[in-house]
Amino acid sequence: MPASKLYLAVIGVGGVGAAFLSQLAHLPASLRPTLIFVSRSSKQLYTPSYDAVSASDLNSSTSKLLSIPDLTSYLSSAPGKAILVDNTSNQDVANAYPSFLRKGISVVTPNKKAFSSNLQLWTDIFDAVESSDGQALIYHESSVGAGLPVISTLKDLVATGDQVTRIEGVFSGTMSFLFNSFAPADGSGKGKWSEIVAQAKEAGYTEPDPRDDLNGMDVARKLTILARLAGLKVQGPESFPVQSLIPKELESAKSSDEFMQRLPEFDGEMEAYKDEAAKAGKVVRYVGSVDVGAGKVKVGLETVDQGTPIASLRGSDNLICFYTKRYGANPLVIQGAGAGGEVTAMGVTADLIKAVERLR
Amino acid sequence: MPASKLYLAVIGVGGVGAAFLSQLAHLPASLRPTLIFVSRSSKQLYTPSYDAVSASDLNSSTSKLLSIPDLTSYLSSAPGKAILVDNTSNQDVANAYPSFLRKGISVVTPNKKAFSSNLQLWTDIFDAVESSDGQALIYHESSVGAGLPVISTLKDLVATGDQVTRIEGVFSGTMSFLFNSFAPADGSGKGKWSEIVAQAKEAGYTEPDPRDDLNGMDVARKLTILARLAGLKVQGPESFPVQSLIPKELESAKSSDEFMQRLPEFDGEMEAYKDEAAKAGKVVRYVGSVDVGAGKVKVGLETVDQGTPIASLRGSDNLICFYTKRYGANPLVIQGAGAGGEVTAMGVTADLIKAVERLR
Repeated sequence: MPASKLYLAVIGVGGVGAAFLSQLAHLPASLRPTLIFVSRSSKQLYTPSYDAVSASDLNSSTSKLLSIPDLTSYLSSAPGKAILVDNTSNQDVANAYPSFLRKGISVVTPNKKAFSSNLQLWTDIFDAVESSDGQALIYHESSVGAGLPVISTLKDLVATGDQVTRIEGVFSGTMSFLFNSFAPADGSGKGKWSEIVAQAKEAGYTEPDPRDDLNGMDVARKLTILARLAGLKVQGPESFPVQSLIPKELESAKSSDEFMQRLPEFDGEMEAYKDEAAKAGKVVRYVGSVDVGAGKVKVGLETVDQGTPIASLRGSDNLICFYTKRYGANPLVIQGAGAGGEVTAMGVTADLIKAVERLR
Repeated sequence: MPASKLYLAVIGVGGVGAAFLSQLAHLPASLRPTLIFVSRSSKQLYTPSYDAVSASDLNSSTSKLLSIPDLTSYLSSAPGKAILVDNTSNQDVANAYPSFLRKGISVVTPNKKAFSSNLQLWTDIFDAVESSDGQALIYHESSVGAGLPVISTLKDLVATGDQVTRIEGVFSGTMSFLFNSFAPADGSGKGKWSEIVAQAKEAGYTEPDPRDDLNGMDVARKLTILARLAGLKVQGPESFPVQSLIPKELESAKSSDEFMQRLPEFDGEMEAYKDEAAKAGKVVRYVGSVDVGAGKVKVGLETVDQGTPIASLRGSDNLICFYTKRYGANPLVIQGAGAGGEVTAMGVTADLIKAVERLR
């Protein structure tokens, strides 16, 4: 079956979505399903007769808005198998994955929320895939580490019978950038903690409100996903210790601006962490880890030896170590940019290709 | 279609083959094809009526030996799609891949020779896959870096339209071990070059004849594969500069023993390399690289800065850096054990799962 007999719906045309659509346009026809639906928050473009649509016409579309159940019906009635690419981080869309999958619609997505919210949603998603007997697939490489081959590697390790004993690393490009600047392995440092946060915000390395990075929840979501893939029944990102870098006193700050203004009051605390680590020949990093045997997940500041891969990270790179029975003392390590529209979209596009190869 | 309607032939039951068969036995039935043929150099086990066989019965088998063309006919006449797992490093079997593939038989293998010999064989293999329209697949993750996700990552980068500009790394577990011992990043060192080679041979880190590692051809074959995947038409592993660590004067040594006896005569030369590098704050490593833009591949000794990932490698780990347009200045890096029966078999088993998921 040629790929054109597969049908594609794309939700979200922001940074990742736009990069994905551009990568999609460059795929060979044999791997490119027919685009029949594209949407952003307040616009949708599709035809009742499943004609091919062009994402560039979305802005001028007058298509009547479909609810998620309507979209599910629309796609499940397509004249061929349908694949939904969800490029949002929307919880409502994520909640609908089980119903899409039960209707035979495959899902490809970087949306972390689908895999890191309550455990029931996770179970519902993978039960639906399992009982579809290969008709409805799910791929979510970019939900951790963007295009880095993190999810696929962990799945391969588990599927081939290796025992993953420990997963450890730096899972946030923002946190990586902040600590590689604040406490580089060479012992220098580019300023006070609050100054570095301000610079990172300025340069677009943080969310518009840096507290959305500093609360650690993004990392906690990624660890939830990895821990579950490694076999742990983690209830959610709030079910294990996550160290927030938002000082208690600033939790009630009413705005991002107020938070940034008062952050310098806490520079001494971070400086003390850094100095204490330095005295022991170490550096401070924001690390996430899963101890599979002990069933423990945690996220927070750790001091790591200089010369280790985590201490030597550069820029906003992520680094993920898989310790397994087969790999022994030296882990399997994956390192590189773990955020950004193009590399996130790359993970989505590569997943789409895998889905097309299995479904066509 | 359940996986049991897929048929599996396994050639080679040595280190990798035995580990593969053990991993295969632990796969869920939904992913495990029916084993109908298993062989080692002088024994084969199969039945004319495609009954399931057990690898443990191979030694006592009295099956008449099939030639490669006979095996091709046997598998192409199976009552369902057939997958051949070649766990050998045999050139004759590799040469037959195009004919297997043209008959609709998929191939999963760690056999480097199929992908690193003459360019015509490469072209024939991938032409056969292409024209099979998804019926005959080829997977060869373990042909570079064993179970590390090297081939799949490079294929994903290329397929999604990234521009791979440079590939660089340490591609031999043996070379990694030798240089990490001879010239560790901390400036110490565990003895003279010839002593370290002798110790590595003793510990089983080298081929029985260490010259088979020291000639660099294993690394050259891996670079050939990666360069071709990145789009370069490399004629073969002898078509670019490969620095052999066998001293010219010892090329005529008649035996491995004679070679090892005379190797100490050349310790001064290696020591000089090491000292010169150390003066510049560097260490010596055996590095392979592909400069995609310039179309250049090379393999040999290089001096690398202390503190870089390549300098900091431990044990017999491999390290592969992909520099691409999307990833920018900091490469996508994959690191870990790149040799050993279990991790090589893991790459084969993971590939088999992918093939089964597409074919069933």
